[in-house]
Amino acid sequence: MTTEFELIEKLSTSFSSPEGLSIGIGDDAAVLDPGRFDLVTVDTLVEGVHFRRDLSDPVDVGWKSLAANLSDIAAMGGGPGVFFLSLALPTPVDVAWLEGLWTGMNEVAEALVPDSFDVSVGGGDMTTTGGPIVISVTLLGEASPAGPVLRRNAVPGDRIVVMDELGRAAAGLDVLCADDIDAEQYPGVVDAYRRPRPQIRAGGLLGLYGVPSAMIDISDGLLQDLGHLLEASKVGAQIDAFQLPIDSELTALEEAGLGEVEDWLLGGGEDYCLLMTVPPARMPKLWDMANQYDWSVHDVGEIRAPEEGLQVIGLDGELLDEEITGYTHFEDS
Amino acid sequence: MTTEFELIEKLSTSFSSPEGLSIGIGDDAAVLDPGRFDLVTVDTLVEGVHFRRDLSDPVDVGWKSLAANLSDIAAMGGGPGVFFLSLALPTPVDVAWLEGLWTGMNEVAEALVPDSFDVSVGGGDMTTTGGPIVISVTLLGEASPAGPVLRRNAVPGDRIVVMDELGRAAAGLDVLCADDIDAEQYPGVVDAYRRPRPQIRAGGLLGLYGVPSAMIDISDGLLQDLGHLLEASKVGAQIDAFQLPIDSELTALEEAGLGEVEDWLLGGGEDYCLLMTVPPARMPKLWDMANQYDWSVHDVGEIRAPEEGLQVIGLDGELLDEEITGYTHFEDS
Repeated sequence: MTTEFELIEKLSTSFSSPEGLSIGIGDDAAVLDPGRFDLVTVDTLVEGVHFRRDLSDPVDVGWKSLAANLSDIAAMGGGPGVFFLSLALPTPVDVAWLEGLWTGMNEVAEALVPDSFDVSVGGGDMTTTGGPIVISVTLLGEASPAGPVLRRNAVPGDRIVVMDELGRAAAGLDVLCADDIDAEQYPGVVDAYRRPRPQIRAGGLLGLYGVPSAMIDISDGLLQDLGHLLEASKVGAQIDAFQLPIDSELTALEEAGLGEVEDWLLGGGEDYCLLMTVPPARMPKLWDMANQYDWSVHDVGEIRAPEEGLQVIGLDGELLDEEITGYTHFEDS
Repeated sequence: MTTEFELIEKLSTSFSSPEGLSIGIGDDAAVLDPGRFDLVTVDTLVEGVHFRRDLSDPVDVGWKSLAANLSDIAAMGGGPGVFFLSLALPTPVDVAWLEGLWTGMNEVAEALVPDSFDVSVGGGDMTTTGGPIVISVTLLGEASPAGPVLRRNAVPGDRIVVMDELGRAAAGLDVLCADDIDAEQYPGVVDAYRRPRPQIRAGGLLGLYGVPSAMIDISDGLLQDLGHLLEASKVGAQIDAFQLPIDSELTALEEAGLGEVEDWLLGGGEDYCLLMTVPPARMPKLWDMANQYDWSVHDVGEIRAPEEGLQVIGLDGELLDEEITGYTHFEDS
């Protein structure tokens, strides 16, 4: 039998001592260094909804659970700091699975967070549940000295820029769920699903240099997340989907009959790519940075007046007349 | 059908605009006013473990979910601020239940938080689940200018003081679960279970005046939570259980055969009473404050040298030789 307190002790020793805290795990609340953190984001992963234990090992799940939060801080143009972990765990608690989860959280921080920031655990809560595993992470971060990059400041004329390749995580999930596809032939998209790589360093640098007018991370799909940005900024947009880069595995999977490249690109979530709007005058700075840091950035459209709504030109160059779609998580009675 | 985004919009309009934030719900992360908050606590409630929908209505559950966090901040001697809410909800989402939950969160803040602090929602995440409801709240707070009150600074000779009456919430749960007890005859303990009343104002004032050397809230039971404080402070203690106040409903319930008063007092959790250690020289200040603010405080023991361990004198005046017990939430294989 492992008590809650022994598990919290294990949690504490599974991570390095966090910076930015004077009191971490082991009191009624954590005590932050004054003035250090000014960004807060919360993301929750539920077994059976956001991950399946037969498709992802615990290290993958840990990676993804922290990656989703790191991506939010990157999308504010800030840098990540201390996180707080809430876990609801079925009994008997699978301690090995739990330790894998923490390994994955350490691995994603090690792999993606630049040395100038320190991501570690500052506290949390663990409880049992009669249902699926629920992992909720609250991550604190620091906005850049130039201030946070919000969703609300895009204006007509701004270019719409996407970083990295979209649709890979959604295609990877489709591969893993398909009976007649050999997942080993599509390692890129499967890895994109299991271990998404949000651009933490790029987000922080873009915020530091004040390049984007607005930014969001693509967690629910390009069109849906762009929709949030447009709504917040009260503007319209045209997207030229044919300007999006296409992973060769997506093309191969479309040929294999698994789905449509265009659907993955426009509607697939969980890639955690950055979507930003950039005033034309700052585009040269963006290209300079992309060259310097070897970023994959793609100018895929333009912010328009609000009355123009969202116009999407498809991969075939024709205007799509579909409604904006993406993942919608809820249905009620 | 209600989308996740419509639910978040409902969440946003169900609470007042939070103080201490420049950007709340509606961006990738919330943006805090610089330097405002330095305390962070996380508490998670799982349906079937921490609440049952047949024993508590949604307003009760909302009350309790925020009360647990408010209690943690009070136990640091601080004041509460903005909170972040993570919800995993079965489909179809019961929107009326959800609105009840938010009502309860508003009600507990209204009832227990002094006007000098402002508790409201700053963000969160909502998702579906195939299992029970999971509610995770991350609450930020402000330590007093005198600094946070930790668990680790009790020293031998300090008095051990409990505020309010213990064991009521546990007895209330036993009443609700018993087939042969009329819950309406025990409204005090049932209410204590459904709507615990942590001493938010008292915690803040005790922190402000630097009265306790150490403090913790009693969420898992007196002996277990005292055990955490003793461990953190590396000291022993003697508790005189016969000095604890006893709610008359507990006595009546023992007479009715439902359980033992001593067990409820020493082991019952979820009362969220404050347990503090106070240097003898500061006891007069504590009594003054208790008189001024009409607090129910009880001197129930003394901090001792570590080698003395924890000695408990029972209600009959005899030394108990039991091991320290309380709620232990975990079992593993």
